[in-house]
Amino acid sequence: MFMDDMGWGDLGIYGNPASETPNLDRLAEEGIKFTDMYTGSSICSPSRASLLSGRLPIRNGFYSDGQFARASYAPQVVLGENGYQNKIVGKWHLGHRERYLPLNHGFHEWFGAPNCHYKYDTTVQPNIPVYKNREMTGRYYQDYKIDHKTGLGNLTQLYTQEALEFIERKTKQNENFFLYWAPDATHTPLYASKEFRGKSKRGLYGDAIMEIDAGVGKIMALLKKLDIDKNTFVFFSSDNGAATYAFTNGGSNGPFLCGKQTTFEGGYRQPALARFPGKIPAGQITNQVSLLMDLLPTILDFADIKMPRNLTLDGQSIRNVMEGTSKVYDRGVFYYRGNALFKSRYGFYKAHFYTWNTPAEAIKIGYHYCPGQRIENVTTSQMTNYTDKPLLFHLGRDPGEKFPIDPTTEEYRIGLAPILKIVQQHKDKLIKAKPEFNLCDLAIQNWAPRGCEKINRCMKAPPSYVYKCFWPY
Amino acid sequence: MFMDDMGWGDLGIYGNPASETPNLDRLAEEGIKFTDMYTGSSICSPSRASLLSGRLPIRNGFYSDGQFARASYAPQVVLGENGYQNKIVGKWHLGHRERYLPLNHGFHEWFGAPNCHYKYDTTVQPNIPVYKNREMTGRYYQDYKIDHKTGLGNLTQLYTQEALEFIERKTKQNENFFLYWAPDATHTPLYASKEFRGKSKRGLYGDAIMEIDAGVGKIMALLKKLDIDKNTFVFFSSDNGAATYAFTNGGSNGPFLCGKQTTFEGGYRQPALARFPGKIPAGQITNQVSLLMDLLPTILDFADIKMPRNLTLDGQSIRNVMEGTSKVYDRGVFYYRGNALFKSRYGFYKAHFYTWNTPAEAIKIGYHYCPGQRIENVTTSQMTNYTDKPLLFHLGRDPGEKFPIDPTTEEYRIGLAPILKIVQQHKDKLIKAKPEFNLCDLAIQNWAPRGCEKINRCMKAPPSYVYKCFWPY
Ligand SMILES: [Ca+2]
Ligand SMILES: [Ca+2]
Repeated sequence: MFMDDMGWGDLGIYGNPASETPNLDRLAEEGIKFTDMYTGSSICSPSRASLLSGRLPIRNGFYSDGQFARASYAPQVVLGENGYQNKIVGKWHLGHRERYLPLNHGFHEWFGAPNCHYKYDTTVQPNIPVYKNREMTGRYYQDYKIDHKTGLGNLTQLYTQEALEFIERKTKQNENFFLYWAPDATHTPLYASKEFRGKSKRGLYGDAIMEIDAGVGKIMALLKKLDIDKNTFVFFSSDNGAATYAFTNGGSNGPFLCGKQTTFEGGYRQPALARFPGKIPAGQITNQVSLLMDLLPTILDFADIKMPRNLTLDGQSIRNVMEGTSKVYDRGVFYYRGNALFKSRYGFYKAHFYTWNTPAEAIKIGYHYCPGQRIENVTTSQMTNYTDKPLLFHLGRDPGEKFPIDPTTEEYRIGLAPILKIVQQHKDKLIKAKPEFNLCDLAIQNWAPRGCEKINRCMKAPPSYVYKCFWPY
Repeated sequence: MFMDDMGWGDLGIYGNPASETPNLDRLAEEGIKFTDMYTGSSICSPSRASLLSGRLPIRNGFYSDGQFARASYAPQVVLGENGYQNKIVGKWHLGHRERYLPLNHGFHEWFGAPNCHYKYDTTVQPNIPVYKNREMTGRYYQDYKIDHKTGLGNLTQLYTQEALEFIERKTKQNENFFLYWAPDATHTPLYASKEFRGKSKRGLYGDAIMEIDAGVGKIMALLKKLDIDKNTFVFFSSDNGAATYAFTNGGSNGPFLCGKQTTFEGGYRQPALARFPGKIPAGQITNQVSLLMDLLPTILDFADIKMPRNLTLDGQSIRNVMEGTSKVYDRGVFYYRGNALFKSRYGFYKAHFYTWNTPAEAIKIGYHYCPGQRIENVTTSQMTNYTDKPLLFHLGRDPGEKFPIDPTTEEYRIGLAPILKIVQQHKDKLIKAKPEFNLCDLAIQNWAPRGCEKINRCMKAPPSYVYKCFWPY
């Protein structure tokens, strides 16, 4: 279960004041809650690519939004080779063109969209197609309505039904299955169905969360009803921090700084829950630094499946963390923004090599990634280079990254040294991939997906402009 | 159990990332957790006076720190009249002089201090005496050591032992008891004992919390061992928001704005847990707006005791909220700073009549109540009057008070109207008391508490300066 722009502070179990996620809170109580789970990127596409590949975006050539899938060793591929039936429900976001779509990357079934559901001007960009397996069944807004005025939209209901139907069918067919459930209602433009619209204390954003939480409840109830819940590994997380730039239409990153798009904790630290009765003891809370990139090797570890061949992974199995048989150990985190390593954590210490809040281009159009937060020399409006003398924070005492440690102190020296070491090791070994996709060439989007002719939804692509556009990551 | 400067975001169950409070988290799981519990004041003394009296500080003449007790209808008084044995362990902070001390206000026993444990220059101010019942047994620093360099201090251990001894003794004597447990280790200067020092991920502040949490665990274990836990109402909260001005020596207010001293949510919203097996169903989380001033009438309600005579209370019994038999209802909150009503909440809406962050005098000596937070027109450095057109926030969508509602909208009009109404009603009925105490007259402090001569700890009071000093609330 992989959410879109849901923040660390959005669930009751993570301290959300509204506390409107009873089903997710129960999932945590029946399993393990991670306090220190990190995404591979604080924006959608690279995060999803890193989740599925177990590799940092920089290694995949996948470090800006909207690029295609190179995650050939994704869980669905390996699991598929071992007899699992795989379905993705919801947002893919790893490429628009047919060769990049889920059914060409290990999934047997799909219901959902290849991209975010931004409402474009369709004369300039195509609105987002919704696929049923290999063919388009309609488009967001045209066929799957979202009413921007009322916030009404029925897609979370459809995504929940699709999940339930798949689980029930595969169980009755006695087949092992892998479900990647990726609703997108918490990404702006937000939506919720009639049953949930207006129900939350938090406005439309909260309505969307309540509806997803209810969907989680239905899925968990079905697993129990089918008597497979003890045999099913369930994992819940989100692709990046809450979109603080969306103001009251964005979620909460709890006590952390800034949000989506940034390399502060608010962008990178994610809610994460896992449940596997009999394997994962109930009621655990772990402070183990973990990565969403750990999920691929962890799933395979639980399923007793080996990776088909060696591939450099940034993730590693955290099965023993989940099983409660491992002590908390120190581990590196690398926070990239685009192709630049901005920050790194080791132990409790986090070094800022570069700081940057909101690009001037974004501010011009009303965006701000750190509304209400302003920390001198930290939330800098310009990209600022501190590689000579990194800012250093102790995330235990100072999870909000507010109080840089005095660089003249012994603590600074001791805290920074292992970070510099792991960063050097990381850089020495890293083979950067080059992005292959030109985000700003509209022709590269899929204007006429397969099946569009059957429902009269084909559009004509504009001419291709092969230039490298500015990407102000 | 009443904490000192512990913030809403400090417990695991309230989303603290370090999550180092297993005993308090269990207390919540076995009872009820409040998301919207408010103090009567965001500084120590007035908060404690309002807790015990069920009345706003403005009604008690008790609206700046360091003043004496007028809480004659405090729970210990009423309970004492009904045969309960009462003990306070820890910080009193409702007066230094003998006539204001706990044993002259309904308590039968006391071990603790009348004030905060600031380390004064003893030639100017007396250091804080520690009382055993009616007599002084020593002073903080001199006899009850706190090492400012190492952060070592043993008082939480002593306060825990005192609580355990009292509970066990009263139970064996078959007497009803009321224990007011008020450790002060989370108020700067912080301290923890050797067993806990250095154990937390959060530094000394976290060590202090871990030690208090362990104390709570011991108290709960004793109640269970004595088989009285099902017959004992346990309540946990804190007197005011975390002291954000103490930077990494202060706690966490989670997603809320600013902290102690202010009328933002970070100053006023408190963690609060209650447990009473058989009466309070386990595992409840309530969004009911509640006040610490509700505790007095609630305790009496649970104990089937009537107030001895009518007195205007700002609190009301929330027994039915705790029992889970009441739907969430709208209720007013009045946020005072000194004798000025700064803000008020009704339903989800909170109006700011005055905003003010940090007084210039405080900034000069290095204080800042909202470090890292800056919201234009909201965290104003000057006291700013918005009574003509209050700032209005929706605390459901915007718990961080970041996004004022546009005053030209219908929502503004509808949200503000009931607040203006309750404020008018409040002001019409309010009889303000005058503070009787001159905070800055050092002579009024108790330089030679009873018993000082036995231990050679008497000091000579300076001459009295009867002038009204500046109090920059
Ligand atoms: Ca996202
Ligand atoms: Ca206090």
